[in-house]
This record gives sequence, structure tokens and C-alpha cells, in this order.
Amino acid sequence: MTRTHRVLIIGSGFGGLYAAKALRRSDVEVSIVAKTTHHLFQPLLYQVATGILSQGQIAPTTREILRTQRNAKVLLGEVTDIDLAERVVHAHLLRRQLRLDYDSLIVAAGASTAYFGHDEFSVHAPGMKSIDDALELRGRIFGAFELAELAANAGEPVDHLLTFVVVGAGPTGVEMAGQIAELASRTLRRNFRAISSRQARVILLDGADQVLGTFGKRLGARAQRALEARGVEVHLGALVTGVDERTITVRVGDQERVFEAVTKIWAAGVRANPLNETLAAQTGAELDRGGRIAVLPDLSLPGHPEVFVVGDMMSLDGLPGVAQVAIQGAKYAAKVIDDRVQERPAPPPFHYFDKGSMAVISRFYSVVSIGKLQFSGFIAWLMWLGLHLLYIIGFKNQVTTLIAWTTAFFGRGNSERAATELQVFGRQAMARLEGGAAELAEDPDKPD
Amino acid sequence: MTRTHRVLIIGSGFGGLYAAKALRRSDVEVSIVAKTTHHLFQPLLYQVATGILSQGQIAPTTREILRTQRNAKVLLGEVTDIDLAERVVHAHLLRRQLRLDYDSLIVAAGASTAYFGHDEFSVHAPGMKSIDDALELRGRIFGAFELAELAANAGEPVDHLLTFVVVGAGPTGVEMAGQIAELASRTLRRNFRAISSRQARVILLDGADQVLGTFGKRLGARAQRALEARGVEVHLGALVTGVDERTITVRVGDQERVFEAVTKIWAAGVRANPLNETLAAQTGAELDRGGRIAVLPDLSLPGHPEVFVVGDMMSLDGLPGVAQVAIQGAKYAAKVIDDRVQERPAPPPFHYFDKGSMAVISRFYSVVSIGKLQFSGFIAWLMWLGLHLLYIIGFKNQVTTLIAWTTAFFGRGNSERAATELQVFGRQAMARLEGGAAELAEDPDKPD
Repeated sequence: MTRTHRVLIIGSGFGGLYAAKALRRSDVEVSIVAKTTHHLFQPLLYQVATGILSQGQIAPTTREILRTQRNAKVLLGEVTDIDLAERVVHAHLLRRQLRLDYDSLIVAAGASTAYFGHDEFSVHAPGMKSIDDALELRGRIFGAFELAELAANAGEPVDHLLTFVVVGAGPTGVEMAGQIAELASRTLRRNFRAISSRQARVILLDGADQVLGTFGKRLGARAQRALEARGVEVHLGALVTGVDERTITVRVGDQERVFEAVTKIWAAGVRANPLNETLAAQTGAELDRGGRIAVLPDLSLPGHPEVFVVGDMMSLDGLPGVAQVAIQGAKYAAKVIDDRVQERPAPPPFHYFDKGSMAVISRFYSVVSIGKLQFSGFIAWLMWLGLHLLYIIGFKNQVTTLIAWTTAFFGRGNSERAATELQVFGRQAMARLEGGAAELAEDPDKPD
Repeated sequence: MTRTHRVLIIGSGFGGLYAAKALRRSDVEVSIVAKTTHHLFQPLLYQVATGILSQGQIAPTTREILRTQRNAKVLLGEVTDIDLAERVVHAHLLRRQLRLDYDSLIVAAGASTAYFGHDEFSVHAPGMKSIDDALELRGRIFGAFELAELAANAGEPVDHLLTFVVVGAGPTGVEMAGQIAELASRTLRRNFRAISSRQARVILLDGADQVLGTFGKRLGARAQRALEARGVEVHLGALVTGVDERTITVRVGDQERVFEAVTKIWAAGVRANPLNETLAAQTGAELDRGGRIAVLPDLSLPGHPEVFVVGDMMSLDGLPGVAQVAIQGAKYAAKVIDDRVQERPAPPPFHYFDKGSMAVISRFYSVVSIGKLQFSGFIAWLMWLGLHLLYIIGFKNQVTTLIAWTTAFFGRGNSERAATELQVFGRQAMARLEGGAAELAEDPDKPD
């Protein structure tokens, strides 16, 4: 009797989860090893940061999703090394070492926030890739309003506390900026006494000359106008040159400009998981500027047809780092593996079917680009709503998310904003904020 | 023109919030100063710890609740001192100092977990008083199952990882123990491959000779039988003498007993906010064993008719530390203040109306005690459900909580369990757990 073919999957994001699910009916043993216990629906992370959704609504437990899939198991652990010759993956959970053998490997460990050589920015301008990032940002955003209320009570200046700068005008940055503008103009209305939440200033920066670069000129311009109509200041061609506790400095052309803002959010770029470096070293495959590894047309690595890289870690034909690329790549890799196990001929090379992209500007207004079809407005927003609901995992999460959206968009029901801001992660964030505030207060005449 | 009467409220729990709301129509200026931005519905905290509810559902933002109450404002800050002679409260938020003057003061800062002279227990047996406590426990409980799965995969023992000890058999301890038993027997069923969640052992300890001491002998015995029927081991007359990373030691009569359990939860007692010490020093009022201060029949302090202490900080006629005492006390204090401002005669002394108490053993089974009326079972559970829904603040939270309960009680939908367990607070908790596991693994022959 032959041993069952072992498929090891690294990561529980879109790539990892959909690969596991695609192997549901295959005669293989599937193991997922991931460093979090949940599958994260990243496109809605900004809604956790702004208090519309709870963590659980966009981060169901991976093992619960795969509960009835008897050929799949989930292991918690962070992968530290991959040995392609030995076909073994090394991982650890705290002091415990894991050694995981495989016959086929699907690497889908995603990407993290990149600061393009300025990692020191991360302290003052956190990114938004994980639940923890989102909760940290939640603490900073709502905390900034709290501090502004206290400062105003004491007769001190508040502008630096009420200025929010989002770096990067891709979908994440646009959605974040739009949502903070909504918080300020609607959600937090009448919550404060010494300040008005409407005093808040939201600034969106990008080095490119348009917002939503991948959506094309026309839609980008339309999105920009919609953002500006909602009070977001858009600064294009702006390269960030410095970030500290209370300011962010950009260069636009030959000019330097300093914004006083304690709350900065970095949505400007990502870098593939550094596991790609060991994969590149062992296979000679190229890494691109974002650390993504060049794969063969069947998503495998040169000389290792049993190893697939999918999603944000993979470089192929310039495909973007979006959920659909990860999902379709994962399903394709699963199919290649299944065909091999069944001794069927290999499928044709991977072909990405572009289902289009969309971004929300505000409630009731999205932009959608599907091939040559481009539109914006309320219908686009309804499409966004329906599609995102569809992809949220679990009926209960779909229902409660719909309720959360109904109350958030028709009312002002961002009810997930309290939580631990001051006590767990917020202490640090707030200490930094307050540090900035105190310094400004000591030196009120400091020029802008 | 006379200045408007200033009422300062310390705390945003049941006492603080209901005092503010009761003053809605009074001709006073109300300020709440609290160290969290939210009002916490503590009776459901155990459901956040066990992944049934999200933080936001039981912790709406105080300033959102009071949004339309124009005479109320909310300030974030931790009170450090009260000067009764000067009528001023000192608070701080990080580096910022707040000085708050008042004409009337309502002190409702609650209580925290007490270890009766054994504060060193707190590291290994955290309490459950705040959202942060609940999220820490969530990480520990679900993390213990994750570690057990990894240990079982490696062929190591798991019993110490799958044993959960709850100390204290009051309502909180009983509900926590019952809910962990539900997790093990139903919610996590089929989530694991190397272990079965049913291997988990849940132990409930109390120094007294019955569970739910305040519910009377008969109901206590019934609750105990119901817990035992659901797999909870109940040990009474058990005094905790030692707690470390992997064990908890109790004395029962003359005998010592050691339980191997990495996850311990302390629900055995509370101590009133230490602000009571400065109040006692300035007024000569007595503190009881739990640090609660003796108040006059109108809930004020001797010599300071303008200062009221309500809720868990107050000692009067042996009233228990439950939500209703805080709510009714707060409303009473608000009425005394309003009557004074309106120059009406003072109301009769505070009279507590006991609406009864209830505790959930498991889904579909509660015990209820209302005066001489005592009952248990499904009808009692429906009463619990309805009453708690009623007290949850906000229509959206009521609806989503009902959905969460429907899926949790009829299905297995504890969907709020993922989150940050590994990344924010869980690192520490898991490091401790793993530390315990590693030590055990090194010394497998250690006697029980």
C-alpha cells in the first residue's frame, strides 16, 4: 500500500485557505501551517480599524472553516525555513519546533507592509496588514479624537491631533481615507463637547500622479473628485521623506512640505514574505523589487515541480497582489497536484481571469473597473456590497456584517470602536500621541 | 446669575453611566471621567472570553451613549486623587494632568480582581473584570487547545494543557466554567485532528461548601448537579494555597491537592477601587474587608453630603456587588442631587429593590432566584436571555447579540475567537503556557 500524498500549505490567507478547500475531494493529506489561527479577509481590514466590524467578522478561525474537511489539518506555527532538497519545512511556535515533511508544497505566506528602505517610519506610520495592525490603528484614530477633546478642554491647540495622513492612494489607502472622513463628518458627530469631529483634516498622499493607479486615468480622476467632495485633501506626486511623532514630510517636485499630524497610516506598499529569499537561493528563481519570486507558467519553481508559490509572494506576468490572483492561483496549484496524484495529464498553464477591481470612496459611492467597463456611484457601491458579503465566510458573519453595514451606512453605528485602546496596545500608541502633543504644547511657536 | 451646578462622576460602569443618564433633565453640568472610553456590560464579559460576543457588543463608547445628552461630557483619564476639602479631583491621561472641580461628586469607579494577599497568583490565574482581561483569557483558552494539538502531534502529553480550572463559584465562575465545558463538548468539536476537544477537563473550585452561595442551598445544589451533568468537576471547601505556571494547589480540609492545569481563571473575589482609602482617610468612614466604604443612608460620606459612593465601592447593609445595586444607587444619588439643586426636600433613604439574581449554567439552563421564588431550567434561561438583551445598550447590539446567541446556542457559532491571540496579548500568555508545557515535557515522570 502506498502512503497518501502529503500536501503542505504555508499560510491561511486567500491562497492557503482556497488551496486547502480545493483539495477537499482529493486523495491527499492536507496540512496548513500558519502563524495566526484565523483566515483574514484583508479587503475589509480598514473597517475593523474604523470600528465598523469586529475582528471575528472578518477573521474566522481556519480550523473551524475546515472542520468538516477530514483530509485537512491546521497547525499553528511560524515557518522559519524551507529545505527543498529534503522536502521539509521548519516552523516553530514559541519554544516548540515543528518539522513538516511534504510531497507537494504550496507557499502562500503573503506579504507585509514595506517602507522602501525606511523601516523607521513604521513606529509612527503603522501599516494595515493584520488584525493587530487594524486594532492598533483603531486605538490611534479614536484615541486622537479623545486627546484632542482633552487638549481643547485645556485650551491647547488640537490641529495636529485632528489631522490624519494616509500614505498611498491604492484601494486600501483610498478606502481608509474615505472612511476616516466619514468618521469625522458623520459617525463621531456630536460625540465631543470641546471639539467638533468635523474639525478633522484627512490627507491622502501618493507618489504617483493619480489615485487608484491600477484603475486607469478616468476612474482615478473620478475617485479623486469624489474623495475631495467628501473633504479628503489629495496630494499627488508627493514622496514621503520623513516621518516623526508629530509630523510627516513630503517632497513634491522641488518643494518640501511638512504636515503636522500625529496619526499617520502607511498604505503605500508591501513586500513579499522573506521566505522567498531562501526559495530563490535554492532554485535560482528571480526576485522582483517587491521580493516576489518568479514562478513557471504552472506556478511552480524551476527544478521543483512539487513546489508552488501563489498570491502576494508570486511574480508572474505582472499580476497584481489582490485576493483573486491568490484564490485562482491556489485553485490552479491544487488542480496540478490533484492531476498528478490521479496520474492525469497536467492542466494548461495558469491563466488569470480578471474579475475586475473596486474601491469604496464612501457610503453609497464606489468605483468599479471590469475590463473596459468602468463606472462609479451608487450601483457600483451596491456591487461592492454584494460581492464582499458573498466572500465573507460563514452565514452568521454575512448576516451580522450586513447589519453592521446597515447601521454604519444608514445610521452612524460604528459600534466596534471601544475595546482595548487604552489598555492593551493603545498604551504605546497613546503614549506616542501624547508625547507629540506635549512637545507641541511646550513649543507652541514652532513654525509649520 | 448663578453658575450651573457641576456634577462630576468617576467611572463609566453601571454606576457612572446610569448616574449621568438620570441627570439628563437636571439643570446641572455633568462630567464623567473614566479610564476607558467604553461602558462595559460586565455580566457578559465571559462571553467575550469564550468567543461568543465581540468587545463592541458589550462595550459601547460612553460618549456615543451620551451623545444627545447635551448637559453631559466625557473625559478620558484615570483618577489619582480626590480632595474633598477643595472639592477637586485629580486625574491624568498619560503625561497630561487633569484638575476637575465639582459641586457634587459621584464616585463609581468599581472594583478589581482580588487575590486576598496573593497578588502573585494574578500572572498565572488572571481575573475577568475588563475587556482586556476577557481578550487575554480568550487567547489563553483557545491557545491551550492549539498547543495541545501541537503537543499531541508530537506524541507528548496534553492533559495539563486541556485542564481548565476556574476559582470561585459565584455567578461569574459558574458561567465561565459552564461555558468552557460547552466549548469543549460542542463548539470546538471536530476542530482538531490529534486531540478531541472533549478530552478537556473543567474544574470549578470554591472555598465555600456550595456553589452560588448567594442563591441559597437548594438552588446551589441544583446548579451544582447541572454543572456536573455537563462535565464540570466541582470541588467545594477548597482553598487555593498555590498557583504556578502549570499547577494549582488547594487545601481541602487537611489534605493538599495539586491539579495540573496551565489555564487558570480567577473569579474568586474583588476589591473596591483604592480611591476608597483616600476617601476613608478624609472622612473617617470605615472600609470593609473588600475595601468598600461605609456610606450614610443617602449614599453620601460623613461630613460630605455632596459626595456619593455607589456600586461596588459602597458598603451599605451588606448589599452585594451586582449591577442592580450600582444602577439603583446611581439613580438615587442623582435624585438627591437634583432635589438639592431644585431646592426640593431630600428623598427618603436609599432602598434597594432586589429584582433577583440569575446565573447561566449552559445553553437552555439557568438558575433564577427572585425573593422566595426559585427556579431553574429552560424557562429560567429564557428569562436570563430576555433580561440581558434588554440591558444591552443600543438596538444594533441587541440584534447582533441575539444573532450571536442564536448561532452559539443552537449551532456552534462562537465566531469571535480568532483575533489577536498570538500577536498582541497572546504572545505573553502563550509563552507562559508553552513554558509550562516545555517543563513538563522535560520531566515527564514528575509525580502529580
